Amino acid sequence: MIKIKIYSVGKAKEDWLQSALHLYEARLKSLISFEWILAKNDKQLKQFLEKETNFICLDPNGTQYSSEEFSVFLIKSIQEAYSRLSFVIGGAEGIPVSMKAQAKSLLSLSRMTFTHPITRLIIVEQIYRAFEIEKGSAYHK
Amino acid sequence: MIKIKIYSVGKAKEDWLQSALHLYEARLKSLISFEWILAKNDKQLKQFLEKETNFICLDPNGTQYSSEEFSVFLIKSIQEAYSRLSFVIGGAEGIPVSMKAQAKSLLSLSRMTFTHPITRLIIVEQIYRAFEIEKGSAYHK
Repeated sequence: MIKIKIYSVGKAKEDWLQSALHLYEARLKSLISFEWILAKNDKQLKQFLEKETNFICLDPNGTQYSSEEFSVFLIKSIQEAYSRLSFVIGGAEGIPVSMKAQAKSLLSLSRMTFTHPITRLIIVEQIYRAFEIEKGSAYHK
Repeated sequence: MIKIKIYSVGKAKEDWLQSALHLYEARLKSLISFEWILAKNDKQLKQFLEKETNFICLDPNGTQYSSEEFSVFLIKSIQEAYSRLSFVIGGAEGIPVSMKAQAKSLLSLSRMTFTHPITRLIIVEQIYRAFEIEKGSAYHK
């Protein structure tokens, strides 16, 4: 079983988001268990990350992958980290430099700025897509 | 009043999407009226677009803007088109070449492939963000 933690800053009050995330979590439930960790602010996020040794930060200056490239990157990262991987989504000010310095890699989804709920949705859908790409299914063509 | 039409291919059966879109539509309702047009397939999309003279196609080879650049691009495009603008989201095979040739411009949100519901959500949030950027509000900082 793969364990993926997704850290973000802020509240999760969006009902639509919970429904949307559940769709993908349900499809992946035999393969991945997700843990969503919401920090109140950057300070708390920093505390949470002190225990993490292997995390990927979402950052505008990170690498932009196509979905196919992300599939290769994700599966390699999961294997290298013995099936434990974390993603970190920053708050309005982005992720503090000291945290980014400890990240295994920096990932950019787009040149655009997305809200944190939309970013969470994109990440989980891309993780699902990554495994569908690896399987060669019709989901991604 | 600005009129924005968003064409896409496929069904809109996602309940979460309707709730999410409504949030942004409600915030923009004094400024923009949205029309969501769902084509059954590429053929029908082509028929719909025959009447359109001013549309922007979402395409992986399009220009990638930051949200700030998109704000400038969007507001200029709306003004030039006398407050009528359309966006076109293709199906699984992308947008047929003949349609892209007639587009006013090609826009890319990311190197990644997103589902069409997620693309619709991103577009409407970026439109909302574009106007908040222009106003200089705290939404985008």
